Amino acid sequence: MPVMLFACFHVDTQAWKAALAAADPGLEIRVWPDIGDPAEIDYAFVWKQPKGVLDGLPNLKAVFSLGAGVEHVLLDDSLPAHLPLVRMVDPTLVSSMVEFVVMRVLHYHRHMPTYEQQQREGLWKPLSQTLASDRRVAILGLGELGAASARALTGFGFDVLGWSRTAKDIAGIRCFHGPDGLEAMLAQADILVCLLPLTDQTRGILNRRTLSLLPAGAFLINAARGGHLVEDDLIPLLDGGRLAGATLDVFATEPLPTDHPFWTHSAITILPHTAALTHPGTASRIITANIARHRTGKGLVNVVDRAKGY
Amino acid sequence: MPVMLFACFHVDTQAWKAALAAADPGLEIRVWPDIGDPAEIDYAFVWKQPKGVLDGLPNLKAVFSLGAGVEHVLLDDSLPAHLPLVRMVDPTLVSSMVEFVVMRVLHYHRHMPTYEQQQREGLWKPLSQTLASDRRVAILGLGELGAASARALTGFGFDVLGWSRTAKDIAGIRCFHGPDGLEAMLAQADILVCLLPLTDQTRGILNRRTLSLLPAGAFLINAARGGHLVEDDLIPLLDGGRLAGATLDVFATEPLPTDHPFWTHSAITILPHTAALTHPGTASRIITANIARHRTGKGLVNVVDRAKGY
Repeated sequence: MPVMLFACFHVDTQAWKAALAAADPGLEIRVWPDIGDPAEIDYAFVWKQPKGVLDGLPNLKAVFSLGAGVEHVLLDDSLPAHLPLVRMVDPTLVSSMVEFVVMRVLHYHRHMPTYEQQQREGLWKPLSQTLASDRRVAILGLGELGAASARALTGFGFDVLGWSRTAKDIAGIRCFHGPDGLEAMLAQADILVCLLPLTDQTRGILNRRTLSLLPAGAFLINAARGGHLVEDDLIPLLDGGRLAGATLDVFATEPLPTDHPFWTHSAITILPHTAALTHPGTASRIITANIARHRTGKGLVNVVDRAKGY
Repeated sequence: MPVMLFACFHVDTQAWKAALAAADPGLEIRVWPDIGDPAEIDYAFVWKQPKGVLDGLPNLKAVFSLGAGVEHVLLDDSLPAHLPLVRMVDPTLVSSMVEFVVMRVLHYHRHMPTYEQQQREGLWKPLSQTLASDRRVAILGLGELGAASARALTGFGFDVLGWSRTAKDIAGIRCFHGPDGLEAMLAQADILVCLLPLTDQTRGILNRRTLSLLPAGAFLINAARGGHLVEDDLIPLLDGGRLAGATLDVFATEPLPTDHPFWTHSAITILPHTAALTHPGTASRIITANIARHRTGKGLVNVVDRAKGY
């Protein structure tokens, strides 16, 4: 019977245990710190774990991340370099992110912040509406989440642009890549959506210089990681009119500190890192199916390239 | 050369004249009240017109409405009973409504009103998220706008219900009809969207009795006509917790009077009748193509059934 160490923090542990047991009754789950004999641990399932929880597990065969992003695992020095690290690729997580991106893009596209302000003023004033085909929505990152979000936006007829580290070709999306491609895309982005993995190359990619390339009055949606945004640069760009608004689901420090100026800025919408939630039911079936593949010698899917960081 | 009387009010007349001329340079347009010889008028294009503008036009052949709803034209006693009345069926108008419906359904589905309130309180608190497949979204009206909105919502995996006067069968949508079907559907509607035509049968259909059939904490989106809602019934239902929120694009009196209590209610979002805008460019091509059909004897499309009212 394979044994899984469960070391996910800030989640509903009982719900996950029940979902994993339902997905594979033959999997034994040990919740950290009650790990029993460390030599018996075959797999580890981690999220926002303290450093060191993977130390001293001589027979560990693979590590699974609860989220799509794995930078929190890679920062953990106790992760042995030879072990496969698997990121979460869950259709439910993807559809949850697509909902969020489409919701906030439409909110900005349809002038909702202005209409809400007009309601506060008791002002009845229809605004000129740009057609979706004339609205340029740019996605940073064309992985699972970015590509799915881009496809959903093309379904509404938006002019969708996408940027990735290496060249990609996706039907219906104007694709850009590399540093020059980034500048070319930003200059055309009425609404910019960040769905990049957090790596040494993407840390701080949303900063005063890059965001100043956007057309005046652009909107920013960051649903990736707080580390992508240089937080001190945002409010001057909003107050100076370069940006008209920002939706932030992620922050350098989470929970966002109570005295952080983002909380009270009228052009910033704050979400508590809930854009895409991993659903225990669907995610558990995906993890246990991957473990079954591994045990029958078929090889794991969705293994992270540690050199690239995603 | 055919002559069109342009009697649309509260619109950008110059933009419409330019778009109609671009769509058919052979169409002569006379803007009310400068109609010239009344006997020369072949077609009339109307929106929110004062009563009587269609009086004394002996050779009028058809009347076109700028909007999808035509109750404003049918109320006009000067509309001769024998004349075809054509409603607007414009893909741009449909896609504009789909954007609006999807935007507000996602807003409620993803707990945005609560997250906005939590931001005002400086509270970081992720909320449990219902899967789209467990969220029941019910559409009143399965015409052009309702059916297109329902289809878009099924694309997100929502559990979509739809109600119409007569029985319909649409793939992926749980269809209801008639008075019994209305009650059965309302009892299951977490989010209720009204996209009905306004007729004697649908006037006041959103009232204390029907809205009390909704599950506690349901949301209402009215993007049809103000006359569908008994406005005095809404605030007690919100304050009593039966409804958690309402988005209203239409009102009994428009513009909404400045002293109306809807303006300041925290659970009501007010839009100035902008959910679906008729776009001059695309709509003008549709109207002139329909006139060309009529002049070559092919018959008009999208003619209103005056007995049904839509």
